[in-house]
Amino acid sequence: MNERLRLIVAYDGTRFAGWQSQKHGNTIQDLLETAFGQIARESIRVHGAGRTDSGVHALAQCAHTNVSSDRFRAEEWTIAVNSQLPPQIRVLRCQYVSEKFHARFSAKGKLYRYRVATAPILWPHDVDRAWHVPQLLDHARIREAASLIQGTHDFASFTANRGRRLETTVRTIRSVKIRRGTGQILEFDFEGDGFLYKMVRFLAAALVRCGRGRISVENVAQLLASPVPGSAQYVAPACGLFLVRVRY
Amino acid sequence: MNERLRLIVAYDGTRFAGWQSQKHGNTIQDLLETAFGQIARESIRVHGAGRTDSGVHALAQCAHTNVSSDRFRAEEWTIAVNSQLPPQIRVLRCQYVSEKFHARFSAKGKLYRYRVATAPILWPHDVDRAWHVPQLLDHARIREAASLIQGTHDFASFTANRGRRLETTVRTIRSVKIRRGTGQILEFDFEGDGFLYKMVRFLAAALVRCGRGRISVENVAQLLASPVPGSAQYVAPACGLFLVRVRY
Repeated sequence: MNERLRLIVAYDGTRFAGWQSQKHGNTIQDLLETAFGQIARESIRVHGAGRTDSGVHALAQCAHTNVSSDRFRAEEWTIAVNSQLPPQIRVLRCQYVSEKFHARFSAKGKLYRYRVATAPILWPHDVDRAWHVPQLLDHARIREAASLIQGTHDFASFTANRGRRLETTVRTIRSVKIRRGTGQILEFDFEGDGFLYKMVRFLAAALVRCGRGRISVENVAQLLASPVPGSAQYVAPACGLFLVRVRY
Repeated sequence: MNERLRLIVAYDGTRFAGWQSQKHGNTIQDLLETAFGQIARESIRVHGAGRTDSGVHALAQCAHTNVSSDRFRAEEWTIAVNSQLPPQIRVLRCQYVSEKFHARFSAKGKLYRYRVATAPILWPHDVDRAWHVPQLLDHARIREAASLIQGTHDFASFTANRGRRLETTVRTIRSVKIRRGTGQILEFDFEGDGFLYKMVRFLAAALVRCGRGRISVENVAQLLASPVPGSAQYVAPACGLFLVRVRY
């Protein structure tokens, strides 16, 4: 019998070409589909909660697929699939769920984290895992700008136009939390109902530019008040971004 | 004027063939010598406090070299050399010191950390940065074995014979600290006056085998009491080992 399997997947995105399937095959989705396909001995599609770009990491991406449930218990799928994946991609948990569950359409929200390393010298173990901004950042200004971002806004200024028209660029960000980690690491946690293409990286760049004094808190307010696609201009690098979890 | 420069160097050892210079050149020492040589426009030798094996990391390795001091201030050397190094190797600090200072011969001791990941599934971001032992370890037994290791012993059982005779295989371990990190990470901190070849990795393997019940605390005591080269047999993988600092 075919049943729906829900997956929680973690990955270090450094060496992969993002989530979404591509011809060359070096994406998280492709590698998961190949792993499932090798075990199930049939072509299998895996649907993610959302795409992550090349270089973006995930602590708990969510996805679903349909498998033959008389073959394995859910925990056995976890072990079997991991045995076919590179160690930089790990299925943390598999769970049989109702067919009504859809990783993307059932998602109610997501939590993204953006890591900024502010020490003069980037720690070798943070290479590809943080944006190196070796400057003194004004945390008070960053917090002020972050509080502006919270709430429901038209975030068109903070997205890249990929040539497709969206019905709406209005999104709700429930909270933006700024935390100091160890070793002069600054973390921005964005929790929201949904995010536009590259929106978190646009917002992270705006917060950092605010903290460096390149733009004012008022500039951020203007970008929110006058939504012009891409007008925020600056995008923080992919390597600092982590999909922390998907809310259902 | 030629002056002695002391360096503190951090590296992610994953992609390098260890510290010591080799013909193919992909070692930390070679890359540092090339970087210094490119700036100084002459052949430069860099001497480390100790060799680390391929895959072993360093948070603060120490080294020295001789450079022409009228060329740069110490801080300028840090910036110049880092500009010539891959991001996985960072000079954290340069300092002009007395010619009497020798990174290896002046060293009074070292602190090594060994990381063990005990969760069933290895976190993608811990790949190459911890030894994955997906088992419940008996922490009390590990602590008991660790306390035996402390002190002055003939550690011949915990070293690999590299075909050279050492004057003595007696070393003093001042402390072995066992710490639980986040995410089911177990850390062993070994502080001592000096370490034999692969000694920390032999000791880490013995502690883990003790925690798994493969050997008893008494077995560890026997290996210390009857020093037979290499009799501990098991070596923990290089990727879990970090040189934390060198004491002078």
